[in-house]
Amino acid sequence: MSFKKIKGGVCTPKKFRAATASAGIKNPSATRLDLALLVSDIPCVGSGTFTTNQVQAAPVRLSKKHIQDGNIRAIFANSGNANACTGEVGTHDAQTSAQHVAEHLDLKADQVALCSTGVIGLPLPMERLLPPIEGMASSLKRTSGTDMAKAIMTSDTCHKEIAVSFKVGEQTVKIGACAKGAGMICPNMATMLCFITTDFNISKKLLDQAVQHAVSGSFNCITIDGDMSTNDTVLVLANGAAGNRAPSQKSKSFSLFQEALSFVMLEMAKALVRDGERVTKFVTINAIGARTAKDAQKVAEAVANSALVKASWNGEDPNWGRIIHAVGYSQAYLKENKIDILYNDLIACSNGLQAEVDMEQLRRIAAQPEFTITINLKLGSAANTVYSSDISPEYIDFNRSEYAYWKQARKDGLV
Amino acid sequence: MSFKKIKGGVCTPKKFRAATASAGIKNPSATRLDLALLVSDIPCVGSGTFTTNQVQAAPVRLSKKHIQDGNIRAIFANSGNANACTGEVGTHDAQTSAQHVAEHLDLKADQVALCSTGVIGLPLPMERLLPPIEGMASSLKRTSGTDMAKAIMTSDTCHKEIAVSFKVGEQTVKIGACAKGAGMICPNMATMLCFITTDFNISKKLLDQAVQHAVSGSFNCITIDGDMSTNDTVLVLANGAAGNRAPSQKSKSFSLFQEALSFVMLEMAKALVRDGERVTKFVTINAIGARTAKDAQKVAEAVANSALVKASWNGEDPNWGRIIHAVGYSQAYLKENKIDILYNDLIACSNGLQAEVDMEQLRRIAAQPEFTITINLKLGSAANTVYSSDISPEYIDFNRSEYAYWKQARKDGLV
Repeated sequence: MSFKKIKGGVCTPKKFRAATASAGIKNPSATRLDLALLVSDIPCVGSGTFTTNQVQAAPVRLSKKHIQDGNIRAIFANSGNANACTGEVGTHDAQTSAQHVAEHLDLKADQVALCSTGVIGLPLPMERLLPPIEGMASSLKRTSGTDMAKAIMTSDTCHKEIAVSFKVGEQTVKIGACAKGAGMICPNMATMLCFITTDFNISKKLLDQAVQHAVSGSFNCITIDGDMSTNDTVLVLANGAAGNRAPSQKSKSFSLFQEALSFVMLEMAKALVRDGERVTKFVTINAIGARTAKDAQKVAEAVANSALVKASWNGEDPNWGRIIHAVGYSQAYLKENKIDILYNDLIACSNGLQAEVDMEQLRRIAAQPEFTITINLKLGSAANTVYSSDISPEYIDFNRSEYAYWKQARKDGLV
Repeated sequence: MSFKKIKGGVCTPKKFRAATASAGIKNPSATRLDLALLVSDIPCVGSGTFTTNQVQAAPVRLSKKHIQDGNIRAIFANSGNANACTGEVGTHDAQTSAQHVAEHLDLKADQVALCSTGVIGLPLPMERLLPPIEGMASSLKRTSGTDMAKAIMTSDTCHKEIAVSFKVGEQTVKIGACAKGAGMICPNMATMLCFITTDFNISKKLLDQAVQHAVSGSFNCITIDGDMSTNDTVLVLANGAAGNRAPSQKSKSFSLFQEALSFVMLEMAKALVRDGERVTKFVTINAIGARTAKDAQKVAEAVANSALVKASWNGEDPNWGRIIHAVGYSQAYLKENKIDILYNDLIACSNGLQAEVDMEQLRRIAAQPEFTITINLKLGSAANTVYSSDISPEYIDFNRSEYAYWKQARKDGLV
């Protein structure tokens, strides 16, 4: 590892500042932070990946366009409302927000990316969302990174941020990130937002390449409940303030950046699974020995998304029978009598059969908060890893009803 | 409807008899029925459909072969143990069981179909399974249909049987069925067993055709937890005892039989969903207005299998936002701003947006034990229906651990 983890988040790289506010988006009487603004003081290049859900929130559509134009300088995010399934009103609200932010930062509207997270199908309460923006624009601080990580939380129980640094010649380069997750985490992408900043100097083209690679090995490999959100967004801003020479694709400094960026995203992705709604177990699923990469992915995802398998993790039951049955319906090419299944290093199922194993030892592994399940098809050399969690009775309880939000929206005259 | 529902089950059609026994398969000290034997007193034709899971239980592999040979006369079923993932031991145990049953019925082993349901990965306790067979063979009764429906139950809370009759000329034809379901119900097929008998006289070829058609509109349209079992089996025996002339494909009597058989299977399939593990809601999902049948199926299945949608049903929350988000990731061709979503006849989402609707009225629909959700893509005329259920905290609780079975198996010296 040629980079090191340091304390910090999105404001750790040079020339990035943030501000947050409490607008009562979901509930006018609540005082929690729910607006965040992140700005690069100097021009930068931006890159992003977005949900593959065909139902996409207005801010996703807008940010995609602005990121393509390649001229981003600021990110404005709200929690409490996803501005999804809000039609022309939602599109208009997103444009108005971007315009409003741009005016107060002396930027153009297409230099602002927008992210919203929260309930679907209700228009944004613009009369509460817009007024704080002016004050936020005038109180941007180098020290507000952690507050930003807090402002984007929805059902998260803790804020998530990280920073790393590495050397390119004499220059110190930093990468910082914050993310929010919780429910609806699934390949590909999640109900998640992740904002990443870096003072690395890099072309948009190479940044895009590095981001795609890092996302495919991190956010696209996690699952909590098999659902895919309308708002998933990863945004990366690189402002070059570190002063390094822009790398070529084959340079050592680009490899270094890729390595550090991939680490940052994977750490954030794992943090989302660990803090999934009412999650008690973090399970790494390694599908190995597959004939093709696609087969390995099918196996890992089928296991990661099976309600019965996830319930067995919640019960700390080393139930390889449920795992092999999910492998069986994954549609990967397989031979039942070759399949091995391991909990950490302990084999539970050998050639499709109960292995000679101390079940109590298996059970102790399944009782740990984190463990690894390896499924070896023994048919080839392709492999895939997915990070998953259990499903708990409390998850269902927690997600039974959002009806209170509708009642608030009715009170607000929005529906 | 040119057939009528009558009281009865698998022993209602002429010349079928059944017997049951309590062998303590899962638990030696339990006294519940767990073995069932169903026999046609005269030669018959048999047809069946089986799980598409690539990991298939030994009895599935054996029954498939015997059904293909077309000479079936008896079905022997056990609950408490699936005889899946049991390798050569399992294959041998299945063969031994069939042989044993055949001997006591004066049949050949390949005239016996086998079905097992229960825990995966443990060998059958043959020392408890075999001894009751002799007594069962000698106590077959015309009145044991209901007992058979009870003997195949696992986590079912009630037994499921049905019978219908219709006229072909002077002859009265009957169809009877029993089924067991509970968890792991998913297109295609389920952790389910369904045994159907009829005294209709029909060729194997036409019976196969009728069964395929009926299964595709019933058991392949239900889902409880998105999982697919290693043991799903539908078996149909037709012994011709009604004395009708064997129909041609285009005859009226064949249409009549098809209609009645489809009804029987659909009723059984719905009964399985209603009695799904810890289920409180039965939800019919109609995807309509799709460009292709495949698209309609993708939409209905994505909604039917979404953990978040199912949690909202449990919470009696008319949460169309979660439904449209599942529609969005279904990979069907769609336009967000055309999608309508209805709860029964009440529109909740119109053209992708919150409809003008009395939310309390929507909420009352979502509070009913059974309701219909219609998703209209308004892009074509293809449609698909899936029957689904909520997911409850109690479902997760119920499925947390099967470890006690392992302990019993260890006691039995099986693992």
